[in-house]
Amino acid sequence: MAEFDPATLTYNEAGLIPAIAQDHANGEVLMMAWMNAESIARTLDGGIVTYWSRSRQSFWRKGDTSGHVQRLVEFRIDCDRDCLLLIVDQTGAACHTHRRSCFYTLVEDGAERITADPID
Amino acid sequence: MAEFDPATLTYNEAGLIPAIAQDHANGEVLMMAWMNAESIARTLDGGIVTYWSRSRQSFWRKGDTSGHVQRLVEFRIDCDRDCLLLIVDQTGAACHTHRRSCFYTLVEDGAERITADPID
Repeated sequence: MAEFDPATLTYNEAGLIPAIAQDHANGEVLMMAWMNAESIARTLDGGIVTYWSRSRQSFWRKGDTSGHVQRLVEFRIDCDRDCLLLIVDQTGAACHTHRRSCFYTLVEDGAERITADPID
Repeated sequence: MAEFDPATLTYNEAGLIPAIAQDHANGEVLMMAWMNAESIARTLDGGIVTYWSRSRQSFWRKGDTSGHVQRLVEFRIDCDRDCLLLIVDQTGAACHTHRRSCFYTLVEDGAERITADPID
């Protein structure tokens, strides 16, 4: 087994890598956000998913203000080492609209339709 | 229902938006790639997932050379309209390494471990 070093991943010009969060219980894709090398290290160290907020330019340990914590279950890397898949134990809503998943808008027959309601 | 217009999505400075492909049969996250507005239109029009290849700077209708076609089952947009979730019917391997999913590398106890073999 090769030791894992976050520096060996491929980041974009802003030093970020996309991270997909998937519900470990039912496989639902919950959200996509961004990480830098330090947020990856914090996530692996503490087991609480910590993103990098591009809008606030700061670490974003999910749930610190909302209570909607993501506990890390599995941490996966893709073949090109430029995308992450986080299998998580999600408390409550992953989405800031208080829906379980951010992907609640379906495009169907050329129109948009909302397929989920806020849960809390 | 609002009519869907790809121009209303949020693209990065290169005109691209990340698209996550998820297996409709078992919920497995298969890959993440990029789309531009025209590749979205082609995907919705023909029902065959068409990405934009950043390395080749060209449209990439998945399966044209490999046979590993992705038929579109559902097209979803996230809350910020800057990420897509494609539920797909995947023929064979989604990954260029001939694994079903690109996310075959697990980080566990500080080390990397390959968790899937090529399937064809």
